[in-house]
Amino acid sequence: MESAHRGKQSIEFLHRPAILSFASVAGKKEAQGPLANCFDIVSEDTTFGEKSWEKAETQMQKTALQLALDKAGMTEKDLDAAFVGDLLNQCVGSSFSMRGNGIPTLGLYGACSTMAESLLLAGMSISAGFCRRSLALTSSHFASSERQYRFPLGYGGQRTPTAQWTVTGAGAVILGQTGNGPFLRNATIGTIVDRGIKDANNMGAAMAPAAFETLRAHFDDLSLAPEDYDLIVTGDLGKLGHQIVNELFSREGVQLGTRYQDCGMMIFDLEKQDVHCGGSGCGCSASVLCGHLLGKMRRHELTRLLFCGTGALLSPLTTQQGESVPAVCHAVSIETERS
Amino acid sequence: MESAHRGKQSIEFLHRPAILSFASVAGKKEAQGPLANCFDIVSEDTTFGEKSWEKAETQMQKTALQLALDKAGMTEKDLDAAFVGDLLNQCVGSSFSMRGNGIPTLGLYGACSTMAESLLLAGMSISAGFCRRSLALTSSHFASSERQYRFPLGYGGQRTPTAQWTVTGAGAVILGQTGNGPFLRNATIGTIVDRGIKDANNMGAAMAPAAFETLRAHFDDLSLAPEDYDLIVTGDLGKLGHQIVNELFSREGVQLGTRYQDCGMMIFDLEKQDVHCGGSGCGCSASVLCGHLLGKMRRHELTRLLFCGTGALLSPLTTQQGESVPAVCHAVSIETERS
Repeated sequence: MESAHRGKQSIEFLHRPAILSFASVAGKKEAQGPLANCFDIVSEDTTFGEKSWEKAETQMQKTALQLALDKAGMTEKDLDAAFVGDLLNQCVGSSFSMRGNGIPTLGLYGACSTMAESLLLAGMSISAGFCRRSLALTSSHFASSERQYRFPLGYGGQRTPTAQWTVTGAGAVILGQTGNGPFLRNATIGTIVDRGIKDANNMGAAMAPAAFETLRAHFDDLSLAPEDYDLIVTGDLGKLGHQIVNELFSREGVQLGTRYQDCGMMIFDLEKQDVHCGGSGCGCSASVLCGHLLGKMRRHELTRLLFCGTGALLSPLTTQQGESVPAVCHAVSIETERS
Repeated sequence: MESAHRGKQSIEFLHRPAILSFASVAGKKEAQGPLANCFDIVSEDTTFGEKSWEKAETQMQKTALQLALDKAGMTEKDLDAAFVGDLLNQCVGSSFSMRGNGIPTLGLYGACSTMAESLLLAGMSISAGFCRRSLALTSSHFASSERQYRFPLGYGGQRTPTAQWTVTGAGAVILGQTGNGPFLRNATIGTIVDRGIKDANNMGAAMAPAAFETLRAHFDDLSLAPEDYDLIVTGDLGKLGHQIVNELFSREGVQLGTRYQDCGMMIFDLEKQDVHCGGSGCGCSASVLCGHLLGKMRRHELTRLLFCGTGALLSPLTTQQGESVPAVCHAVSIETERS
């Protein structure tokens, strides 16, 4: 059996998984931002017709999944496995969206890195022949996140300058053995990094070192350089975290330049939309990938993408107990050509 | 590339992952039960020397990991990936146990099915050559679970007759490409099943239909029968759930008999230990597998095992919102012989 392990923490998809379809759903505020025209479905009603924010999040996931299936001309029966997760306690957004649909389902928790983690694992399942078609699905919702992690919206809590705004959005990707692409090429699994940041409202600073470590491992393990990509995006480091990653690379003599962007800065207009450091949440990188980036790849406006999901692995309880914020970053490279 | 997909929801490990080492940690009450002599480490102090129950849970995971590494004569550097998860909000038990240890880490959430889910995914990573050695690790802690899901212990809450007792325990398994075994042979990924049970203190009844569906799919997909196994264990259905699975099979003319047992009933003496329907929690099936079952396989007292992790995918919030309890079950078959 040929080894697909590379270097310290990377893998290569020897049989490259093809992206068969993808779909994105976004909320009202996201549809007022720079990527407004990229999302498949935008809801003016952020309850998505449901009675609670959590049920709204489940509804968003169901909508993204159905759209991705429709685009691929498939039904639930065509999927051999789903890799799903979200930010809610016990990941109930995902468990309830997959309930009763008959799809074999593996639940993930990677905080806001979930879109990359689910793509990576769905990619493994395809490349190795365990699945013929598999799904990567995730979401976040501003209102369910605020209530769970911070305060119910009705309290009118104040936000600190380094805070980010949880994106209301969902993304779904269906992978298969053959297709026109884009294709997954390789991936780097992140280690859990904690540089001692204790401010739970400064996720960007907490996650940036994890993004830096994973990017560096990716380049080392696979003998690649930033120039090998047209675009490198991190999930949702926001303005401050993006700046820190640039600085960390700069100290090593590497200039990432405009090739390096962040989904949290792309989805909102940071000047006009009052989102402080930018967007966050699993739905941020998911909706930017499935609503914007993969569309550009399909239109051949983008050839080689390194998609890096970043997650802050804290809980309100760990903050209350005085802990710092561990973080993780998983990277998946996506290309328009199979080889 | 040879397909490793089987039937509706099963996979076959074409290159069978070898279990290189395993370790278990348990608390005081678990060490008073029928499996007392099986655990590697038992702590009379359920704080494990830490200041909070959540930190105690993290400490348990670290201990199980270190023991498994020691037994295999390895260090963290030898592991290419870890598949980890627990029951705490945002899976902080696992994130904090893996923080800073340099092991590439993928977080999972499968409620009490996590030991099976992590074995299944770690097995995929080995069988396909993505990893040379990988880790499956999980835990639960009675006190952190009670506080999070029900009431702080100091409240002295009453328990209903169908309630289960969350096991304080952790289990770690290290898989590799070659070794003396036991070996993973195949696995079945569960779908999310919900038969409308709304009593959050009756997990056994909520999870039993998921266990039934996965077992049936396993037998169908792989052309196997219960008699092909020496032992079939479910994770933690407890007495009532175990009875329901037996009844569901009985209706189809299949008698599982004494070959079918449940980890939640094995770990405690249900008559004497005041645990009502039995043990539960990720740590239940994890410590029974790593403390009892794999030991029996190493001693060749057990040849073919079907290990079925069962998880109730609710949260306190979904119960408050009037929802029923979705459940999942993942099955992994383990054999002493490679072929």
